[in-house]
Amino acid sequence: MSAPLNINAPRFWRTVERSDAIGIGRAGGLQRVALSDDDKIMRDQFVTWCKEAGYAVTVDRVGSIFARRAGEAPDLPPVVIGSHLDTQVNGGRYDGVLGVLAGLEVLRSLDDQRIKTKRAVEVVSWTNEEGARFSPPMVAAGAFAGVYPVDWVLGLKDDDGIGFGDELRRLGYDGRAPVGGRPLDAYFELHIEQGPELWERNIPVGLVTKGYAVRGTVVEVMGETAHTGPWPMDKRKNALVGAAMLAVAVNDIGWQFHASAGKATPSRLVAWPNKPGILSDWAQVTCDFRHLDPQSADQMKALMLAQLPELAKRANVEFKVVQEWVFGNERFDPACIGLLREASSRLGVPSIDMASQAGHDAYHVSKVAPTAMIFTPCRDGITHNNHEFADLERTLPGVNVLLNAVVARANRV
Amino acid sequence: MSAPLNINAPRFWRTVERSDAIGIGRAGGLQRVALSDDDKIMRDQFVTWCKEAGYAVTVDRVGSIFARRAGEAPDLPPVVIGSHLDTQVNGGRYDGVLGVLAGLEVLRSLDDQRIKTKRAVEVVSWTNEEGARFSPPMVAAGAFAGVYPVDWVLGLKDDDGIGFGDELRRLGYDGRAPVGGRPLDAYFELHIEQGPELWERNIPVGLVTKGYAVRGTVVEVMGETAHTGPWPMDKRKNALVGAAMLAVAVNDIGWQFHASAGKATPSRLVAWPNKPGILSDWAQVTCDFRHLDPQSADQMKALMLAQLPELAKRANVEFKVVQEWVFGNERFDPACIGLLREASSRLGVPSIDMASQAGHDAYHVSKVAPTAMIFTPCRDGITHNNHEFADLERTLPGVNVLLNAVVARANRV
Repeated sequence: MSAPLNINAPRFWRTVERSDAIGIGRAGGLQRVALSDDDKIMRDQFVTWCKEAGYAVTVDRVGSIFARRAGEAPDLPPVVIGSHLDTQVNGGRYDGVLGVLAGLEVLRSLDDQRIKTKRAVEVVSWTNEEGARFSPPMVAAGAFAGVYPVDWVLGLKDDDGIGFGDELRRLGYDGRAPVGGRPLDAYFELHIEQGPELWERNIPVGLVTKGYAVRGTVVEVMGETAHTGPWPMDKRKNALVGAAMLAVAVNDIGWQFHASAGKATPSRLVAWPNKPGILSDWAQVTCDFRHLDPQSADQMKALMLAQLPELAKRANVEFKVVQEWVFGNERFDPACIGLLREASSRLGVPSIDMASQAGHDAYHVSKVAPTAMIFTPCRDGITHNNHEFADLERTLPGVNVLLNAVVARANRV
Repeated sequence: MSAPLNINAPRFWRTVERSDAIGIGRAGGLQRVALSDDDKIMRDQFVTWCKEAGYAVTVDRVGSIFARRAGEAPDLPPVVIGSHLDTQVNGGRYDGVLGVLAGLEVLRSLDDQRIKTKRAVEVVSWTNEEGARFSPPMVAAGAFAGVYPVDWVLGLKDDDGIGFGDELRRLGYDGRAPVGGRPLDAYFELHIEQGPELWERNIPVGLVTKGYAVRGTVVEVMGETAHTGPWPMDKRKNALVGAAMLAVAVNDIGWQFHASAGKATPSRLVAWPNKPGILSDWAQVTCDFRHLDPQSADQMKALMLAQLPELAKRANVEFKVVQEWVFGNERFDPACIGLLREASSRLGVPSIDMASQAGHDAYHVSKVAPTAMIFTPCRDGITHNNHEFADLERTLPGVNVLLNAVVARANRV
């Protein structure tokens, strides 16, 4: 058995620092939402790096970018490494970015060390993982896995009514490649933990075995406009009041499950007309329930649904669930996890098994390919925040684990 | 004493019907918010009517339009009739519109009947009464009365960051006339009641003697962004949750005062980033308290303020009152009310005394001129809603009362 491989750490971190400069948000953070002008600059930079290294770049119809380092056996399905380059509006510099740039660095390190693999190795940057501009999140990986129809994704609108497909065209990322429909040998994703455990325990690698169960809903509230002044309380149908009551109820459910690390979030509330002087006749609340135990997640959501009639009565409005989604039931692939575990061991990198609390593109990909994830430490677990922080020292072991696991997988015939 | 005068009813209603066609919103309603393209079309139509009739039109620096029918004694302060031509985003056809067009009809009727008055009679359309686009409401009448500095008004921004002054310039209504600073002999405003009493009791005229006390506040909520997934409940500072708790509390205060016809409204709630997947670190709630008794209105607001520390603790956020306003303490002028009462009596029009629950331009004008208001019936009190309804039959008596009161006042030397 040959000695374990190592990436070129300074080169890797230079790509991260270049990304830090594209789409600067609040101090320390990034505001590089999907299909924005800054997203295009980052995409162009990524494509330039890939082409300079000689990888074949393809863009699929939902804008995901694949760069391929050829293998000896071109007919075999590739090993794919990926994550996302888009961020939240108050996002950090590492969430998603580390995974794509780690993938690029793995390919470059293989070149440096003149390692040939039987299977091609690809790196992918999925479009719109965050869902910060176009809801739902992880939509391009979902389309790749056949969860969402391509035309439905292209028809998504942002809050200003601008279309996903129109923005892809505007930025020149309306690719020709079909979305999914081809076999992958395996998919690996490296990502910051987005929780405090690795950082606090000073362990560089988390091996993700499963995800927290997530139950999402969008609830619409129907009321009636009227004048803020004369309209009597007992005739009011202020949709904003109904939405606020629902938001408070959802938060309370989170507290009910706090002891078992459950979370419930009203993450978004919009109302119309939402102006001084007039009662709103429409509102919408996005509700998110998460629990390690899928039954508890179901129970949290059921508790919310069970309260709707009572809240409807209190606020004199009507509620309607207009969107629902589920993720995090996925189990990752034991063989792929085994390769990561083996690589950690050979490299002498301490690791622990973990469950992911956040959603990742890997969840969707796991439906169509053997998949595993590596978590790396982020300070205090802070994420989706400009104070998100990771450093090369704590990230490097994970990238080396990724490199060795990918080589092991890609050499396999 | 001569016979009481009457307006030209069909002509009056034709102007209302023309207004119905400008800025059509939902079926039956108007969406003609201040300084929109449709507002300009309506302004142009109003100016055209005024100029065709030979009235001198001036526009002041905040875009309010004055049309003057000259009097015999040009040095005497004029009698002014006014209201507003802008609407809410889901507004009706009559709120404000009837008052301006009644004023125009009064002037035209004086022409028809070749009535000369000692004092000039003016009709004014105030800019942005509704505050649907630029907050606060009644801002141009407020500037006229010296409540708001002109430059502050011109610097107001809408939700898209577009400036009040810029929009005035774009529409060509950035007038040269100074704002206020000249004496008015009296100000009369006709307006739909925006309550059900006149309609239900089948009384055509309400004489407004005073207003409900209004206490407005904008409360800001400061939290911290974090990931909807992993971030534990006990570390969360979701500003949206704090805002929702506040909105529910404000609504509850309204119910506490329901028996004495008090109203409390969370009318507007905005949050940032307000996206799925991330907790919001900022939110803002507009709170509105109204009561006939000013002390009760103060008490309602105080109850809200007293709850902020407890709510801040529950939601783990900080609250800050960033804007406060007061109106409705005004008492209208007994002499002007007397003229309206006398005109009603001479015309045989039944009337009752009323308090206004909504805000009106007249509130501000009453600070610098003797002022009175006429209410006319609107169906079921529905307003700020596309189902708002008034008809000529029920409106006509009020306009005739206005005509006769204005003539009486304007003839006075």
